[in-house]
Amino acid sequence: AVKLLLEPVQPVDVAEAIGNLRQNLQAIAFRLLSKDEAISVYEYLDTVTQQNLLSLLRSGEMQEVMEEMSPDDRARLFEELPAKVVRQLLDQLSPEERKVTAELLGYEAETAGRLMTTEYIALKENQTALEALDIVRRRARDTETIYSLYVTDNERRLTGILSLRDLVTADPHTLIRDVMTEEVLSVRTNTDQEKVARTIQRYDFLAVPVVDLEQRLVGIVTVDDVIDVIEQEATRDLYAAGAVQAGDEDDYFSSNLFTVARRRVVWLAVLVVASFFTSEVIAANEEVLQKVVLLAAFIPLLGGTGGNVGAQSSTVVIRGLSTQSISALGPLKAVGREAMAGALLGILMMILVVPFAWWRGESPLVGLSVGMSLLAITTLAATAGAAFPLLFDRMGLDPALMSTPFITTCTDVAGTLIYLKTAEWLLVNLPQLLTAAGISTQIAPVLLS
Amino acid sequence: AVKLLLEPVQPVDVAEAIGNLRQNLQAIAFRLLSKDEAISVYEYLDTVTQQNLLSLLRSGEMQEVMEEMSPDDRARLFEELPAKVVRQLLDQLSPEERKVTAELLGYEAETAGRLMTTEYIALKENQTALEALDIVRRRARDTETIYSLYVTDNERRLTGILSLRDLVTADPHTLIRDVMTEEVLSVRTNTDQEKVARTIQRYDFLAVPVVDLEQRLVGIVTVDDVIDVIEQEATRDLYAAGAVQAGDEDDYFSSNLFTVARRRVVWLAVLVVASFFTSEVIAANEEVLQKVVLLAAFIPLLGGTGGNVGAQSSTVVIRGLSTQSISALGPLKAVGREAMAGALLGILMMILVVPFAWWRGESPLVGLSVGMSLLAITTLAATAGAAFPLLFDRMGLDPALMSTPFITTCTDVAGTLIYLKTAEWLLVNLPQLLTAAGISTQIAPVLLS
Ligand SMILES: [Mg+2]
Ligand SMILES: [Mg+2]
Ligand SMILES: [Mg+2]
Ligand SMILES: [Mg+2]
Ligand SMILES: [Mg+2]
Ligand SMILES: [Mg+2]
Ligand SMILES: [Mg+2]
Ligand SMILES: [Mg+2]
Ligand SMILES: [Mg+2]
Ligand SMILES: [Mg+2]
Ligand SMILES: [Mg+2]
Ligand SMILES: [Mg+2]
Ligand SMILES: [Mg+2]
Repeated sequence: AVKLLLEPVQPVDVAEAIGNLRQNLQAIAFRLLSKDEAISVYEYLDTVTQQNLLSLLRSGEMQEVMEEMSPDDRARLFEELPAKVVRQLLDQLSPEERKVTAELLGYEAETAGRLMTTEYIALKENQTALEALDIVRRRARDTETIYSLYVTDNERRLTGILSLRDLVTADPHTLIRDVMTEEVLSVRTNTDQEKVARTIQRYDFLAVPVVDLEQRLVGIVTVDDVIDVIEQEATRDLYAAGAVQAGDEDDYFSSNLFTVARRRVVWLAVLVVASFFTSEVIAANEEVLQKVVLLAAFIPLLGGTGGNVGAQSSTVVIRGLSTQSISALGPLKAVGREAMAGALLGILMMILVVPFAWWRGESPLVGLSVGMSLLAITTLAATAGAAFPLLFDRMGLDPALMSTPFITTCTDVAGTLIYLKTAEWLLVNLPQLLTAAGISTQIAPVLLS
Repeated sequence: AVKLLLEPVQPVDVAEAIGNLRQNLQAIAFRLLSKDEAISVYEYLDTVTQQNLLSLLRSGEMQEVMEEMSPDDRARLFEELPAKVVRQLLDQLSPEERKVTAELLGYEAETAGRLMTTEYIALKENQTALEALDIVRRRARDTETIYSLYVTDNERRLTGILSLRDLVTADPHTLIRDVMTEEVLSVRTNTDQEKVARTIQRYDFLAVPVVDLEQRLVGIVTVDDVIDVIEQEATRDLYAAGAVQAGDEDDYFSSNLFTVARRRVVWLAVLVVASFFTSEVIAANEEVLQKVVLLAAFIPLLGGTGGNVGAQSSTVVIRGLSTQSISALGPLKAVGREAMAGALLGILMMILVVPFAWWRGESPLVGLSVGMSLLAITTLAATAGAAFPLLFDRMGLDPALMSTPFITTCTDVAGTLIYLKTAEWLLVNLPQLLTAAGISTQIAPVLLS
């Protein structure tokens, strides 16, 4: 407990503690906070607790919190609330904050417009550094950041940018025009949140300005929110690779069993139906299996290996698309390279698999069937594993959408067909050909031992 | 081209352009940069280009770049260089930078000590805000950030923290002691980089101070480097889920085919050998397959579904461990919940699978065998999928290490065994029992149609 008391108490820690309380205790605990604390803690609460407090506390108590919230956090909350409640809350806001909130809610989800805050400092080119510092001091308490400063003209068009570092080191009488840099990197209101995150990550910015179609500055996106976007997108990719539907928040372990099942069952059902086709392929090739039952022993091995090679290829391509590291290569070359990698890996795996299949299958022809189809399957799996995500990406869909499990299952169907057809040819058709050619007596005993 | 010229040129863009040139052109292009440009561009080059420039340019030209580099970026470069080159470069550094570099290289990889920079501003409690601002102005050009300021005592122990925001809004004559906050959140030099990243992400910091065992301030980790850590750790988890070995850098698509094969073949080989056991299980149950060949048609379906359920569970658990969202639940409850989810999903899948297996397997007993084993397999797979990553985590290993593909393959072995044993009992032993009981004539025709 002593250690706990010495630990610094941050708004997010208080928010977590309140979020863990029972519903009616949450309101009591929240009331114990000072006004300033309440405002900063509220932004860090999860949406459920935010909603709970809104309904438990008298609207008078919440009015100031709503008014003082960061516009981006407020937009995120309002998005989750029933339209009726939103209308009520909007009515209680000052005209200024109401306008801002309506504006942010007007942008599409997961774009810069929705992620940005409108609380930034805009300076004018003909102000002096001294005047600007004075503005910074006055705005410091109610603005999101004072470290990135923006310069706009009379039409609110963004004409320059400077950092507080530039400002404090400048001669007090220099004009902002001479301190700022005119080369401003900005994003549009409709830029995808992932693109916004990449921009901040690539250039090591603390914030990036957001402009509308007329190049007017409408907001800024800050690095803290970008980290959450990167986290969310990584979760989404990982969940897609694991055939789990990602939620808006990272709330898997706090959701109930039926939500859990709902987020998993659709994918499972699709994959189960897809694997009915594998069953069909096996049933259609009953004849050759009847002849050599041991052939069945290698179906999971081939499907599994093909699935793993396909998963590897789709993993690297999906990640390459996310981090944009694949762009150096181009889609066609990337697929070609994966195909070659698949073939190479198939050959390497043959060294392990062929001797095992020969011995366990009790025939060199079984070994040959398994080996030949292994090579075909790994090549095919790697090609499909690379091509599908790239195709999805081209079509404007999320490349991670269904690639890894989908490819694994497709590989199973195609791989089983390749395998059983190869085996049929080697174990049924070939001996017949040999017999017809009258040479069965010499070679057959060796091959079909 | 006009658009290109209007785009702001950032060091990272120049670095990328140089990195894309042929080796000998890289040196020529780099020489065209001004000294200041060269320093900031060099930090953004990939390690290969950095090394290339080091070997192509005369050491005199590189000396100043080495001297002025951020200590963290320099440590990252030196780590990759041959010991002999490092010794040479260290000799050319000023005593101060040499000491700092040796110190950073002394910390373990992927810890706060290795990630931090030593270029921060430390203030004293008895300085006034005015004095402090003066220090900030003087240090602004050669320090990593001036936005987070640290207060230390005479033993260099960290006693407080303040932001430039606090400083510029403070009365010029206040003492730092009265502006700073004493509740400082810090990390240790040996704190894992992932923990450091979570701290900055959770508290929305721009930087976090790093202290040694005596609570002395030794450096700071900044948010830009933390974003790269989050990216790297996400890649690692995703690659692990796809059975690909992650490299230090996101360089899969720039590495050659043999590196690609090397990063994939080990995992594949392990998984192939593991699936030999599935083959063994099938071979050992040849008898029942001989009797009903169509049983083989459901082996991939059961293995695939089990694999998918297991992958889902390991995905959510691994992600939950990474984002610490699982901690609210505790490991035992998490496993229990996954087991229940697996059973529930198994029951839901039975609705689809049992009718199909009855029809395709041409017998209700085949449908029953498939359905019963499906339920057992999904429950087992979900349990294992949750338990393995948690176990790995407890053992101090990376939970993502081998979980998803490993679980898929284990599920295949166990699932096939469960299925064939169930089928054997229902299709071989049960009829024998019925016959022995003399009731075969009544029920057998119905069951074994
Ligand atoms: Mg406000
Ligand atoms: Mg998106
Ligand atoms: Mg960066
Ligand atoms: Mg924000
Ligand atoms: Mg935030
Ligand atoms: Mg994405
Ligand atoms: Mg599989
Ligand atoms: Mg320096
Ligand atoms: Mg680690
Ligand atoms: Mg955060
Ligand atoms: Mg750095
Ligand atoms: Mg960096
Ligand atoms: Mg990790």
